[in-house]
Amino acid sequence: MPTAPPVFEPRNPDWEADLRASFARQGVMGHIGAELGALAPGEAEIRLPYGAHVSQQHGFFHGGIIATIADSAGGYAGFSLMAAGDGVLTVEFKLNLMAPADGELLIARGRVLRPGRSLFVTTAEVAVLRNGAETPCAVMQQTLMRITGRHDVTG
Amino acid sequence: MPTAPPVFEPRNPDWEADLRASFARQGVMGHIGAELGALAPGEAEIRLPYGAHVSQQHGFFHGGIIATIADSAGGYAGFSLMAAGDGVLTVEFKLNLMAPADGELLIARGRVLRPGRSLFVTTAEVAVLRNGAETPCAVMQQTLMRITGRHDVTG
Amino acid sequence: MPTAPPVFEPRNPDWEADLRASFARQGVMGHIGAELGALAPGEAEIRLPYGAHVSQQHGFFHGGIIATIADSAGGYAGFSLMAAGDGVLTVEFKLNLMAPADGELLIARGRVLRPGRSLFVTTAEVAVLRNGAETPCAVMQQTLMRITGRHDVTG
Amino acid sequence: MPTAPPVFEPRNPDWEADLRASFARQGVMGHIGAELGALAPGEAEIRLPYGAHVSQQHGFFHGGIIATIADSAGGYAGFSLMAAGDGVLTVEFKLNLMAPADGELLIARGRVLRPGRSLFVTTAEVAVLRNGAETPCAVMQQTLMRITGRHDVTG
Repeated sequence: MPTAPPVFEPRNPDWEADLRASFARQGVMGHIGAELGALAPGEAEIRLPYGAHVSQQHGFFHGGIIATIADSAGGYAGFSLMAAGDGVLTVEFKLNLMAPADGELLIARGRVLRPGRSLFVTTAEVAVLRNGAETPCAVMQQTLMRITGRHDVTG
Repeated sequence: MPTAPPVFEPRNPDWEADLRASFARQGVMGHIGAELGALAPGEAEIRLPYGAHVSQQHGFFHGGIIATIADSAGGYAGFSLMAAGDGVLTVEFKLNLMAPADGELLIARGRVLRPGRSLFVTTAEVAVLRNGAETPCAVMQQTLMRITGRHDVTG
Repeated sequence: MPTAPPVFEPRNPDWEADLRASFARQGVMGHIGAELGALAPGEAEIRLPYGAHVSQQHGFFHGGIIATIADSAGGYAGFSLMAAGDGVLTVEFKLNLMAPADGELLIARGRVLRPGRSLFVTTAEVAVLRNGAETPCAVMQQTLMRITGRHDVTG
Repeated sequence: MPTAPPVFEPRNPDWEADLRASFARQGVMGHIGAELGALAPGEAEIRLPYGAHVSQQHGFFHGGIIATIADSAGGYAGFSLMAAGDGVLTVEFKLNLMAPADGELLIARGRVLRPGRSLFVTTAEVAVLRNGAETPCAVMQQTLMRITGRHDVTG
């Protein structure tokens, strides 16, 4: 029988405040108009309204922009399980674009698959909302590195 | 003995003009300030000057922004070898972030590894320029799909 | 709210028999001792008992062997949804090794995320069974191509 | 101008002997008939003659077998640059299958792109030899972890 999804206990009691502070420092998120959505230990959602400034040549959300919010959603899902003062770096990620991202809102939901001592594995599903209905448009698999002794929030 | 890098013949005599027209239609490229660099059949370079609007929480270029220009550099490397009127879609890509992208200019160089009938495999190397010296900071491997009967340039 | 996992309708009424016949033709599966496990539309399980012939230098299952059964589990998950006479080719896959594959049985469970017209996106989770308990040890994300007009079963 | 490929200095004076000893301990390599080819600091080649035991349903080399020798070629390319006594683990890899691996010999050539303190990024190109001519059939991008204080050779 397949194993059930893991349930995670945060190590940092202030994880949510620290996560929001780190997100606020990502210049690119404010610039493109991305916002944090639902948060839980091991899970983070990022939402991005459509605009021409995030489009590709056919008028859909650009694949790189999908990657940008998927990368951060996975990264913050991992960050939520790290210790106070830890930083997070993306080692690598892989993104499949499954359908045109044609809609008014892009939603990336990151989730930790495996929190290791130094490396985390995460996944993110990206959906596009169009006329109130969600369509999955991308899926990501990611490796993160936990950085100790370096404050993510204070730079 | 390893095989030499392939030499490519473009199928579309107007490939460079069509590529520049397609790039100009990618809203996100203008918005973040990215520009086309050197172009050749099977190769495309994209350059992006630094700014707070493309930064992550430590002040370096954001991984998603690196992905954005790497994805487009690989995509346009492929597009340069397609037939007139073809469109290009990214099927998927995988990006390794190898060093902090700390500098004043980001340069992504895409290159076709294999131009297939419908699928292309490309790679892109991303370097950051700091005080005149280049440091490799990321490498990407990508799959593209050639779309026929749909004009990339005219939408 | 996240979208529910999709429910798939097979297009080929003989999908299970055709899948088993194709698996029987994969020389490598018999050679390493891999067997089909549970099958359902859009899902396929492959099981591999441990032996020195599938080990790496520390005595665990080799990462390439994990890749071999994950690749086939994803491939047959996709094949189960294809039309009679279709063939399946792996375009690419990405595998994260999350924990040492130390145990007596390796189990790969493939699942379709998106069945497209020509391209399928799948995922596979790989677990290792040790003293009756399962530990997740790898996760894969994969792109498949549906090949029409070429019989997978009859070669 | 693109940066030239890096030249690497080995840290372990016995890197080649240690690499050969580690390879000899990978049960799967002997079982499938794989052999080491050319070695250099930061580079490793693995060669595998064809047989039904490494085939898929169309009679070509199986994608998982291609992954197996590509993974090891990248891993040993990295191992060649590590310190005496270090071990190497694959964190993840991504493999594109670019053409049917139809031939009598499979050759994987691994090469280090970036040797970090704990993480290495490598690439591998896989070619198939048929009637004396090489055809590229796959390309891999990989992340390795250097394990210190644990002897790879002695287990």
